[in-house]
Amino acid sequence: MTAKLKPISRVARSLGIRDKELEPNGRYKAKIDLSILERLRKTDARYILVTAITPTPLGEGKTVTTIGLSMALNRLGVRSACCLRQSSLGPLFGSKGMATGGGASRVVPEDEINLHFTGDMHAVAEANNFLAAFLENSVFHGNPLDIDVASMTWRRCLDTSDRSLRNIRYTLKSGAETYEMAAGFEVAAASEIMSILALSRDRADLRSRLGEIVLARTRRGAPVRSRDIKADGMMAAILNDAIKPNLVQTSEGTPCFIHTGPFANVSIGTSSILADRMALGLCDYVVTESGFGVDCGAEKFFDIKCRASGFKPHACVLVCSLRGLKAQSRKVTITPGEKMPSGLFAEDAEALEQGLENLRKHIQNLKLFGIPVIVCINVFPQDSRRELDRVRAKSLEFGAQDSQESRLWEEGSRGGIDLARSVLRQTRQASSGFKFLYETDLSLQEKIETIAKNIYGAGSVDYAPPARQALDFCAGEGFGRLPVCIAKTQFSLSHDESLKGAPAGFVFPVKDVRLAAGAGFVLAHASWMQTMPGLPRQPRGEMVDIDAEGHVRGLS
Amino acid sequence: MTAKLKPISRVARSLGIRDKELEPNGRYKAKIDLSILERLRKTDARYILVTAITPTPLGEGKTVTTIGLSMALNRLGVRSACCLRQSSLGPLFGSKGMATGGGASRVVPEDEINLHFTGDMHAVAEANNFLAAFLENSVFHGNPLDIDVASMTWRRCLDTSDRSLRNIRYTLKSGAETYEMAAGFEVAAASEIMSILALSRDRADLRSRLGEIVLARTRRGAPVRSRDIKADGMMAAILNDAIKPNLVQTSEGTPCFIHTGPFANVSIGTSSILADRMALGLCDYVVTESGFGVDCGAEKFFDIKCRASGFKPHACVLVCSLRGLKAQSRKVTITPGEKMPSGLFAEDAEALEQGLENLRKHIQNLKLFGIPVIVCINVFPQDSRRELDRVRAKSLEFGAQDSQESRLWEEGSRGGIDLARSVLRQTRQASSGFKFLYETDLSLQEKIETIAKNIYGAGSVDYAPPARQALDFCAGEGFGRLPVCIAKTQFSLSHDESLKGAPAGFVFPVKDVRLAAGAGFVLAHASWMQTMPGLPRQPRGEMVDIDAEGHVRGLS
Repeated sequence: MTAKLKPISRVARSLGIRDKELEPNGRYKAKIDLSILERLRKTDARYILVTAITPTPLGEGKTVTTIGLSMALNRLGVRSACCLRQSSLGPLFGSKGMATGGGASRVVPEDEINLHFTGDMHAVAEANNFLAAFLENSVFHGNPLDIDVASMTWRRCLDTSDRSLRNIRYTLKSGAETYEMAAGFEVAAASEIMSILALSRDRADLRSRLGEIVLARTRRGAPVRSRDIKADGMMAAILNDAIKPNLVQTSEGTPCFIHTGPFANVSIGTSSILADRMALGLCDYVVTESGFGVDCGAEKFFDIKCRASGFKPHACVLVCSLRGLKAQSRKVTITPGEKMPSGLFAEDAEALEQGLENLRKHIQNLKLFGIPVIVCINVFPQDSRRELDRVRAKSLEFGAQDSQESRLWEEGSRGGIDLARSVLRQTRQASSGFKFLYETDLSLQEKIETIAKNIYGAGSVDYAPPARQALDFCAGEGFGRLPVCIAKTQFSLSHDESLKGAPAGFVFPVKDVRLAAGAGFVLAHASWMQTMPGLPRQPRGEMVDIDAEGHVRGLS
Repeated sequence: MTAKLKPISRVARSLGIRDKELEPNGRYKAKIDLSILERLRKTDARYILVTAITPTPLGEGKTVTTIGLSMALNRLGVRSACCLRQSSLGPLFGSKGMATGGGASRVVPEDEINLHFTGDMHAVAEANNFLAAFLENSVFHGNPLDIDVASMTWRRCLDTSDRSLRNIRYTLKSGAETYEMAAGFEVAAASEIMSILALSRDRADLRSRLGEIVLARTRRGAPVRSRDIKADGMMAAILNDAIKPNLVQTSEGTPCFIHTGPFANVSIGTSSILADRMALGLCDYVVTESGFGVDCGAEKFFDIKCRASGFKPHACVLVCSLRGLKAQSRKVTITPGEKMPSGLFAEDAEALEQGLENLRKHIQNLKLFGIPVIVCINVFPQDSRRELDRVRAKSLEFGAQDSQESRLWEEGSRGGIDLARSVLRQTRQASSGFKFLYETDLSLQEKIETIAKNIYGAGSVDYAPPARQALDFCAGEGFGRLPVCIAKTQFSLSHDESLKGAPAGFVFPVKDVRLAAGAGFVLAHASWMQTMPGLPRQPRGEMVDIDAEGHVRGLS
């Protein structure tokens, strides 16, 4: 399926972006200069979040819905754009594949967007790794800040899935002393730098956040920040282009911003505040998404991103599929990287009933934030009418304001007209009833427990000793008022992939806590979370190739 | 000094590049699509190499001369472009600084070119590191190719100066077996992928070279290539944009191609064949450079790059300065990363006389390649007239066809008119007397010895046992006809920085040999060459910053 692309300057003009604000990157991609923000005065745009039930490893169709809903709104004559996260090469060459929607609801040019895009991902890794180099260089050259080498926690990163680099060892010299270091790499999408880029409101905010990153402690226990080793200006310079949002188009030629790509299981899972800020200033409706289910992405979107931006969402769309709901029954076992059971598409009232518990919990979770919930059932051709009707009925019973079927993958905007009309109905008011799940003056532990109990369904929280110590350090150094970001599996509402549906009463473990002072949150790791994926036995990258004219094959 | 920039589309049009061949990247940078090559028929362009005597750590002004000479040729009405290497962030944030010329002979926009440019450097690192991940992933998932783990030599890379990553250790599992790995990172500018990108004649050639990379041996001793682990297509896709040359402009608005950036001490030190190919097809004169002195960059330009491209250079410009010549006397000691002795600018007949030995040897070396040598004396304001005249006289006595002073840094093209006229005089003939230093049917050892004895001045070559074994492996597997690329210090004609002037009769050591089958050469390491630099005590990056409007400060 080849979409006919418009020159990006035309897409930009349709949004009211002026030529001098546009920095083209090839014919179909562009960066938008931050100077545009000075003239944008619009404050009545509606802000729509797309989230999902607990997803299968193939996803529930959230990106397709985000793209397709914005196209359907445009089709209805509403000036609309979508805002997405940037894709990462690990999933592209590993098992998941492209992150640019699919079928008739895609963003284009998808090869370029998935492969190199405008290089922002690399700028993040570069800033991250030069910070690591500056830190160890300071220790190497006599350690003038008296850094406690054992406390250095900054990890290097790559946009590569390389399991060998999870844990590396090397020797660091400092004058007469020699330290045997245990360190490691994570994916760029997990780096604090990526979160900082996503959460910065403008360039000055970026600059200041980069200086606040806490890298280690001195031997007397005080935090060592990146500004203490004079690495903050250097990082800001490296990120000077990456901070500008990228504009592309959907397969129907409507505008799409793609900017920053933190993962939602190990980080905040949202696209950038700056892209949303531009889109809200230029459009009447802005549709954005957060990664994985409500528990992973949406909670962080509300409590971290919206707190940092000050933007209030007006409604949320909760995507599910019959396949995904049945995968949440106790009858089905799915292994990431392996084929999904074929029975998932057959009618199965028992599996559906069990899976609906997962939908119920996600709807209840969303209602805690005070905004309308529209369930979007992502319909596959083989789906049973009876089951689709059942999901719609149960959605309303569980408290959703509406429930609509969508055929956006197959039909593009035409397949999402009902959904778009529902969104328009639910957002007639310019005001939003949005509220946070928690206030920041709770203690860090109270915040973690609020999320674990109210969103995940835990009965209690158990802190491992290193987590407890790190929480004490954060509180003692004045970071107790930060929101918390919980890293946990995306394949269950709980921390345990094997717990399906809506698990309740379990003990939620917090194994480790890391301070992300620049990004402005405290990261709590439930169980042992992998921040550097490995490749499967037959990576998708094996099928990727180019021809002599430079056409890429094998990405989808 | 702020240059007034033309839109890049105007620069491109002045060269005869058509709009559809131009992929703008911001307002002042662009990639040129490879489709242009199909229509370029011009074959009479003159091809000029700029090289230097043994440089000081601050360089001799080679890039300033390359840029300035091309501007001076344009000023004389000759359609001319320059082709440069891309800069690397390590030197930018370490001690050397920007790699985009200086004063009135620069390429612009220099901040963008030095910092992120079009992201090619990152694409190189990404391809390099995914190849490493694919290799170890194959071993992890049961080792179906029966790879001898101890023979895996592929190194990861970053565009960062991080000495801690030179030697890392980690554990690699493969079924029931566990290997303790000793590995490491090098800078992206040293990666074989960077050399492949520089040496590829077109996309098909790139594709094929990427498949030829030898990564390891099987337990039976056979080479394991990247195509055996199906990583070649994936790398080609990652490099699909990076293979397109980048166009920018000089401070006088003349065209400049900047593409690929292998270092000349640890790699081939030249910009890309594709950029030269485009420039030669579009211009009457193409000025390019190779890294460091004749011994490092120029020999590889002639014997590796020109062999791969088939292009014959018409003349070479050998840059020197009074400061640089005196630095080659036994009276002066310079430590990289520390300030240069102030006495270098004072008149000193004895130091100059000793340093002229270095000039003599470089001239003699260049004459081995059969093309005219023009010595360019890069004049500093405080230079002595008597000494400048002395250098000119000695240059001619040593066999140079001409010698001219240049003031390109201070005056731009005006300061290089004499040099440009001299180049025009020396290249009246379209034919070139160019010849290689050696033919490839010599054995690898004979090739190494030809370079070491004829170019460096060695009396003999001593091979360490691992080097000998690797040479035997290369010859036995059919790689004996490849040219050789020698990795050695840039601060002496020999392998030993402390040997100044024109050392002779020394024993040249070859400690290690690596096969770069994709790039198409055998890399011989003299002594222990650092392929991952460390940062100095006070990295230049500490002074770099941005303001709220995104202007970068502190780069120069």
